[in-house]
Amino acid sequence: MNLAKVAVIGASGYSGEELVRLLSRHPQIELVALTSRQVAGQPLSSVYPKFAGTRYAALKFVESSVDAVLASGAEFVFLALPHGVATEFAKPLVAAGLRVLDLSADFRVKDSAVYEEFYGEKHHAPELAAMSVYGSPEIYREQIRNAQLVACPGCYPTSILVPLVPLLRRGLLKPQSIVVSSMSGVSGAGRNAKLDYLFVECNESVRAYSVPKHRHLSEVEQELSIAAGEKVTIDFTPHLIPVNRGIHTTTYCAPSEGIEPWHIENAYQETYGKEPFVRVLSGSALPDTKNVTFTNFLDLAWRHDPRTGRFVLLSAEDNLVKGASGQAIQCLNIMGGWEETMGLL
Amino acid sequence: MNLAKVAVIGASGYSGEELVRLLSRHPQIELVALTSRQVAGQPLSSVYPKFAGTRYAALKFVESSVDAVLASGAEFVFLALPHGVATEFAKPLVAAGLRVLDLSADFRVKDSAVYEEFYGEKHHAPELAAMSVYGSPEIYREQIRNAQLVACPGCYPTSILVPLVPLLRRGLLKPQSIVVSSMSGVSGAGRNAKLDYLFVECNESVRAYSVPKHRHLSEVEQELSIAAGEKVTIDFTPHLIPVNRGIHTTTYCAPSEGIEPWHIENAYQETYGKEPFVRVLSGSALPDTKNVTFTNFLDLAWRHDPRTGRFVLLSAEDNLVKGASGQAIQCLNIMGGWEETMGLL
Amino acid sequence: MNLAKVAVIGASGYSGEELVRLLSRHPQIELVALTSRQVAGQPLSSVYPKFAGTRYAALKFVESSVDAVLASGAEFVFLALPHGVATEFAKPLVAAGLRVLDLSADFRVKDSAVYEEFYGEKHHAPELAAMSVYGSPEIYREQIRNAQLVACPGCYPTSILVPLVPLLRRGLLKPQSIVVSSMSGVSGAGRNAKLDYLFVECNESVRAYSVPKHRHLSEVEQELSIAAGEKVTIDFTPHLIPVNRGIHTTTYCAPSEGIEPWHIENAYQETYGKEPFVRVLSGSALPDTKNVTFTNFLDLAWRHDPRTGRFVLLSAEDNLVKGASGQAIQCLNIMGGWEETMGLL
Amino acid sequence: MNLAKVAVIGASGYSGEELVRLLSRHPQIELVALTSRQVAGQPLSSVYPKFAGTRYAALKFVESSVDAVLASGAEFVFLALPHGVATEFAKPLVAAGLRVLDLSADFRVKDSAVYEEFYGEKHHAPELAAMSVYGSPEIYREQIRNAQLVACPGCYPTSILVPLVPLLRRGLLKPQSIVVSSMSGVSGAGRNAKLDYLFVECNESVRAYSVPKHRHLSEVEQELSIAAGEKVTIDFTPHLIPVNRGIHTTTYCAPSEGIEPWHIENAYQETYGKEPFVRVLSGSALPDTKNVTFTNFLDLAWRHDPRTGRFVLLSAEDNLVKGASGQAIQCLNIMGGWEETMGLL
Repeated sequence: MNLAKVAVIGASGYSGEELVRLLSRHPQIELVALTSRQVAGQPLSSVYPKFAGTRYAALKFVESSVDAVLASGAEFVFLALPHGVATEFAKPLVAAGLRVLDLSADFRVKDSAVYEEFYGEKHHAPELAAMSVYGSPEIYREQIRNAQLVACPGCYPTSILVPLVPLLRRGLLKPQSIVVSSMSGVSGAGRNAKLDYLFVECNESVRAYSVPKHRHLSEVEQELSIAAGEKVTIDFTPHLIPVNRGIHTTTYCAPSEGIEPWHIENAYQETYGKEPFVRVLSGSALPDTKNVTFTNFLDLAWRHDPRTGRFVLLSAEDNLVKGASGQAIQCLNIMGGWEETMGLL
Repeated sequence: MNLAKVAVIGASGYSGEELVRLLSRHPQIELVALTSRQVAGQPLSSVYPKFAGTRYAALKFVESSVDAVLASGAEFVFLALPHGVATEFAKPLVAAGLRVLDLSADFRVKDSAVYEEFYGEKHHAPELAAMSVYGSPEIYREQIRNAQLVACPGCYPTSILVPLVPLLRRGLLKPQSIVVSSMSGVSGAGRNAKLDYLFVECNESVRAYSVPKHRHLSEVEQELSIAAGEKVTIDFTPHLIPVNRGIHTTTYCAPSEGIEPWHIENAYQETYGKEPFVRVLSGSALPDTKNVTFTNFLDLAWRHDPRTGRFVLLSAEDNLVKGASGQAIQCLNIMGGWEETMGLL
Repeated sequence: MNLAKVAVIGASGYSGEELVRLLSRHPQIELVALTSRQVAGQPLSSVYPKFAGTRYAALKFVESSVDAVLASGAEFVFLALPHGVATEFAKPLVAAGLRVLDLSADFRVKDSAVYEEFYGEKHHAPELAAMSVYGSPEIYREQIRNAQLVACPGCYPTSILVPLVPLLRRGLLKPQSIVVSSMSGVSGAGRNAKLDYLFVECNESVRAYSVPKHRHLSEVEQELSIAAGEKVTIDFTPHLIPVNRGIHTTTYCAPSEGIEPWHIENAYQETYGKEPFVRVLSGSALPDTKNVTFTNFLDLAWRHDPRTGRFVLLSAEDNLVKGASGQAIQCLNIMGGWEETMGLL
Repeated sequence: MNLAKVAVIGASGYSGEELVRLLSRHPQIELVALTSRQVAGQPLSSVYPKFAGTRYAALKFVESSVDAVLASGAEFVFLALPHGVATEFAKPLVAAGLRVLDLSADFRVKDSAVYEEFYGEKHHAPELAAMSVYGSPEIYREQIRNAQLVACPGCYPTSILVPLVPLLRRGLLKPQSIVVSSMSGVSGAGRNAKLDYLFVECNESVRAYSVPKHRHLSEVEQELSIAAGEKVTIDFTPHLIPVNRGIHTTTYCAPSEGIEPWHIENAYQETYGKEPFVRVLSGSALPDTKNVTFTNFLDLAWRHDPRTGRFVLLSAEDNLVKGASGQAIQCLNIMGGWEETMGLL
């Protein structure tokens, strides 16, 4: 069996680590290069003791360089780098014909002005942003298949878009009524030694942050607007809660005139009835992050509130899996022409 | 110094335990009776080892009976009982002239029909509900002073009412635009041996519950409606998160025509500028439950979202203190004519 | 490919759930029956929402009965039942020629008198205890291969035996010097609705329990005595800490006369150098449960304290995987003649 | 009432914060100066939002300097500084006649050679180490009363010394048999932005560290040796567990010839029967950190293991209170001639 060659650039954060964990079990690929500025020269198992005794334990990190990646023979390259830095690697790799899956924010936003508004710096490769496909299989499966550059979504957006996009596409909601409240585990803040993310500062604590303009709004509103066919602006409040993994999102929205609960149910059944990783819960069940952590599933439920007329949409995912690395591998499977669930169940 | 005599009925749950912890430090009162069906006969310190060596360690629980309370000479009685049961004690105690602070839901809702709608059973003492004062010092300080029966708020309502009431009273908001998302620590579920609240089921988990009609909506909407001078119906979603203590509430609302951010700030400064337990945060600070747990403070911040025009109100409290037992003692201090912060700082 | 048929009896606890999770990914077996008294008739995915969308989501639980298991055609049967109850199933299943892997304590202790001393009840199948093999692959790999009844170890014993057995076998330690201090996650207490295991009672808490005579001492001392060739009695204190999964064990022991640190290192290298699931850490690394949770690895390190002359042995495992279900599947792989790591990496 | 003037030097860590929290409630003292290099000029409430609305909210941090402390008129000074730095302040403050309570390690170890062995640097004020009193009220109450310099114990030592000292003083134990296993909450690691103490690295993790020679052994063995009247060397393994606060220590030891369980019980009753902050548990109760966190109590229990002949001693304390700041205030109360429990119950 011919294994596809894969490289991971910048594997020293939590998303990079999770990519490696999931790729280790993937039967169709071979990891040929791991790069990292900080730990070049060390084998995977000494950087992450948890990988000792597993498939790639002895694989050594190399310096993050385009040449190293090209030399490795990789066909697919994951970029798990800070935003801004990803562009430096994506440009030459794309030019060299490799297929790139970028986990940073660099290519998610099509409109450079919006990127600059939310990220506070100029975009350095608008032509790549233009050619990239937003890596949401439920929305862009067909485009992902032949994409050369996939811009994998941020951790919150998937939990917001999966519930909303099918409803907006069908015109079931008043777009300006949308309010989103999310809670995320601390791994979402990355592996950075900052006081705010110390155990003692997070444990027995809940707090909102980035109110009212979190960066992920840029990609979320872009995709909601496309789905609605009009400009959509929403309120979104992320909260940090003391779990390692997991995002729970609760969305409030008002129906368009004449829309009944069964329209919602129909829309979800039509859209997600056969999706391998979106589970629409039935009966009294509500999403619970503990049912989705360490998996690529997104759980979804909805309720109608007859007292206010609004709908409440609830979703849960693992921020590192369906919210980052797992979904990126789901894209890889589509790009590689493999079973979409390969290595992910 | 003449100490006021106080009894606590049903002290075996988390609110009861917290009442005892706080009353132990109160310089103006003397705890004369603790009752509990399950642990009658045992001293406080064997039921709660944490109280060994403290002021009331040797105080023995007695059977929960009206006679026992009357015999104790108590002037003030806290009821920390399940709803329904509280009424059985409140009736004769009020009739006997004692001043009662009830932590259950029995007397919070003035309208018996609403009570029945939300609690699924008939109300057995509407006349007491009518005479009771809702135990929110920030709203009803003057009425609490001479109240004979105080209906202490549920844990969520304070976190919702403190941000909203001053704004609704001044007509600053469109009442039907209000959406509330709250997160609570597990002590809010009470000290009940149920699978759902096992450590393993709550740790590394987040989940919504009671969507879309949590019981606390009955008292919340009653008070919001009074403040607004019209019927207010809101959406409210509570979520369970893995902390022992703490509630964080995020509220979304649209301003009335012509309302500007400075109206909000003014309203809060006027209302809470001198409140001893409401802290309106300034600058970039946002509420964090870790700043309020084990205190009677409620922290409050607000943001204007110019993109959507909405306001986001954020509040944090300790569900067992400002959300239950601490606020009840704040009421006691008002009723007793003592410094309102006594025993609470 | 011919899949081996496997049944799981009593799958409603945490070990049973973990068995199902791991078996779902095992390429060589087919799960043909799941039984449970409480949830018979329901599909796996409604009992455990986390399994929706996975291989056995639709498999229905059946009543726990020997006939049901025989009818399923299972060749291998896992018993995830309370002690005492396991015997009722093991007897007829073994008699019918099936191969049984029991996760309860029923067959771990060879000496019925010891069983009665530690479990407080008569043993009802001493002949089965006699024929069973203790399911520790590192100690009994050859006997497991053809065993008909495997008595899978308790969660603590593996973390104690793996460090000690090779040293005792070589006579490197004074057996009576051994002192063991362990810490376990709360899943070790099982999925039982008891006050002691509520989130609020476990979070922000550490406590010892079953001091000084925990039941697992019976099997631990049996195996240590066999390894040492003499009766070994030890001190063992288990502590409950607020994690879902993971056991960390610290063992203190004095060397026999003339034993040097390199004897210890040699013993471990000889014994575990090629073991697939025991990782002897080198350099300054110490075991951390976060490196082994959700894996079947046991991490092991040791230190010599020249000041006291003692050795300190440190080990970490996932109590539900290497401490229970993962190790049972490792035994299954040996019994089935498959790669020992199958489904476990 | 004349309040005693108190200063806290270096109040930006967890011990300093806890000192301020406890001193805020102390009726006999007035906090006149808070110093900190990093946050000089800011009021307490902006450095620690939790103190807004409390007694010292508006007190401004000043530069850490001896002159500032002298200018404040403080009679008592707490040093909450890193080791090494504390000496720089203690020298001039002691010379100026102030009474100093040092929470660092600088003056705990009398023997400079031992200090250098464990801390890896020369001691710069052996004469102060010589004159200081080790701040354990249960051991040195009388000497603390008139001490000018109190060396407050590290967080682990109190949990080890309180159980052992009375037994060693009476010759009840074989000193060389002592083995100690401790577990500590993460606040013990201080408020330092290091990867190892990030939430994600500590949550769902347990690990030992500093094996086999933690720095606290220097003061522990010094005090055990004094109690035993001979040189005592022990094994001690600290473990980091995911709680904010709390230390649990389990100690194993062999009795001297002829010693029976009742000797132990008698020793504890004689020693601690009237101690305000040491609670010897009775019956089946075992220490649990949740009963002591946020208090100055140390809970203590012991068991005899007739199978091995050893005793198991179990203790629990809050590392920031009885293990640091609370015990320092207990010392202050003794030095000030006040009720020893003042501000601590």
